[in-house]
Amino acid sequence: MKTRRTPNLLAAVLVVAVAFTSTITRAQDDSLPSWNDGPAKQAIVNFVRTTTETGSANFVPREERIATFDQDGTLWVEHPMYSQVMYCFERVGVLAKEKPELKNVEPFKTVLSGDHEAIAKLTMPDLEKIFAATLTGMSTDKFQVQVKEWLASAKDQRWKKPYNELTYLPMQDVLKYLRANGYKTYIVTGGGQDFVRVYAEQTYGIPPEQVVGTMSGTKYGYDKDGKPILTKEPKILLNDNNAGKPEGIHLMIGRRPHASFGNSPGDQEMLEYTKADDGARLAMLVLHDDAKREYAYGPAQGLPNTKVGTFPQALYDKAQKDGWTVISMKNDWKQVFAFDKN
Amino acid sequence: MKTRRTPNLLAAVLVVAVAFTSTITRAQDDSLPSWNDGPAKQAIVNFVRTTTETGSANFVPREERIATFDQDGTLWVEHPMYSQVMYCFERVGVLAKEKPELKNVEPFKTVLSGDHEAIAKLTMPDLEKIFAATLTGMSTDKFQVQVKEWLASAKDQRWKKPYNELTYLPMQDVLKYLRANGYKTYIVTGGGQDFVRVYAEQTYGIPPEQVVGTMSGTKYGYDKDGKPILTKEPKILLNDNNAGKPEGIHLMIGRRPHASFGNSPGDQEMLEYTKADDGARLAMLVLHDDAKREYAYGPAQGLPNTKVGTFPQALYDKAQKDGWTVISMKNDWKQVFAFDKN
Repeated sequence: MKTRRTPNLLAAVLVVAVAFTSTITRAQDDSLPSWNDGPAKQAIVNFVRTTTETGSANFVPREERIATFDQDGTLWVEHPMYSQVMYCFERVGVLAKEKPELKNVEPFKTVLSGDHEAIAKLTMPDLEKIFAATLTGMSTDKFQVQVKEWLASAKDQRWKKPYNELTYLPMQDVLKYLRANGYKTYIVTGGGQDFVRVYAEQTYGIPPEQVVGTMSGTKYGYDKDGKPILTKEPKILLNDNNAGKPEGIHLMIGRRPHASFGNSPGDQEMLEYTKADDGARLAMLVLHDDAKREYAYGPAQGLPNTKVGTFPQALYDKAQKDGWTVISMKNDWKQVFAFDKN
Repeated sequence: MKTRRTPNLLAAVLVVAVAFTSTITRAQDDSLPSWNDGPAKQAIVNFVRTTTETGSANFVPREERIATFDQDGTLWVEHPMYSQVMYCFERVGVLAKEKPELKNVEPFKTVLSGDHEAIAKLTMPDLEKIFAATLTGMSTDKFQVQVKEWLASAKDQRWKKPYNELTYLPMQDVLKYLRANGYKTYIVTGGGQDFVRVYAEQTYGIPPEQVVGTMSGTKYGYDKDGKPILTKEPKILLNDNNAGKPEGIHLMIGRRPHASFGNSPGDQEMLEYTKADDGARLAMLVLHDDAKREYAYGPAQGLPNTKVGTFPQALYDKAQKDGWTVISMKNDWKQVFAFDKN
């Protein structure tokens, strides 16, 4: 009896242990509940496991666990137009109330007309005038208040929701999953660094010091009461697009990321830079191929062309060649938005 | 009997409670073991308590606990010359081995002569040539290797020790004490951001992404094997001195610090900016008044004048007027260096 009891006990312990292990494994897989099973989800899970499990040949020390995310089109909706551009256009209306003379001055007159066709024809110098008028000249504190006020009232036209509810639930899963595994998550966006910082903590759990964006200069000075203030200047220090993304990452972080996520050619250099060192590296691109739940645009894979967040076939081919993973919104995402009925 | 027992028990409990509380208090005070008791130590302890104790009117949420430290003269020795300038001069010797023709070209010829008097007379354009030749033109990876190699062999002339052993033990105490209380510690230095990042983690426990310094541009490109690299360019994005310090803090952190430490007029705007908001704010300046254990220079308080890390009387007076605390190295620091016999 005694000799048979021990194996039984051992078997029972093993059964419990296996059940326990499989619970852990399932719990880990459940870290990406908005993803369908498939190569994209698997790439993320494999990457996290191989870089964080003790004894793994690809183990990455905690302080070097850096993951960078493009924002527009990668973390939230960028169609029909980038949210920050919507902010600038809508802000012209507020400015015109303060300075009625703007109503007769171009390009503000066109923006105020609401004539979509005329607005679409604005030139780059026109847009720069609008950006300078709405994004610079005020103190950093005042700018923060202005953006917060806008965010609280502005709504996307299709979903009639505040812009910061239009974040992709599967990418929120990835942010949380990486952070739960010791990764520091950064936004690396072509958008304005000061703009994105206003809502990044509340929207993505990413603090202002982890937002890398297009950087403008500020000028230190004193207000009329002698209180120190920083005034936003119309001077670009770094354009955080294309080559500017790895340059911005070096400037702001000083370490090479182990994982990067993007969706357009502006992210290509960031993904190249991420992959160009030893160990396990994750590079992923979101393909917008879901006209029903979000939008469909490429022109890669025969999708309709676009001027906002284009995904050319050449980028798709490069991804295949270099071992980057393309995320199909349609096939890989179980649910797109938190407010979607799944 | 019963009526007397309860007060006795209560008294016993109180005695234990008081003993326990005083243990906690002593443990907290022991967080600054290299400091003498006095107003400077008390200012630090009071600040940490009032901003971190639950229920305190000055309580600061954990994510907003930011403390910024100048480096040269605040965290480590800056006399007779800033370490980075020593690096650049000594690096010229290495360059001359690779490119012997430099031996006949000014200002390199003068630096290579070792003639201290002639070196002291180099003009700003001369120095800029030396900085450009030694700090730019290479990849960020190569630069890191060069600085690491130098740090491993270079020695300060007075103490015959590696430069990164010449950090002030009392300031290391402050860094640790603040971090133990949830503060994120940043270096905000006029020195090169890429230079200081090489050793900041090992020397101060401060990771590269928490080093704010004078920022130079990099250029993204590919080496001969097609591998992406960032090349250091002779282009200053931000001079992190004076007004550049709050501007750099905004750029890199995006939050206002609650505590700042400096030692010269280059830190004045950082301290002003730190103090210019509500709640408890700590602003401190290190006064080098200890010729025996370190150096003595002002010219504040009748100390000898200097060109390196000056502390003018006007800054001393401003500190008194605005409630900044001046740290007397001589009186406030029990021990200056870790290698000192106390």
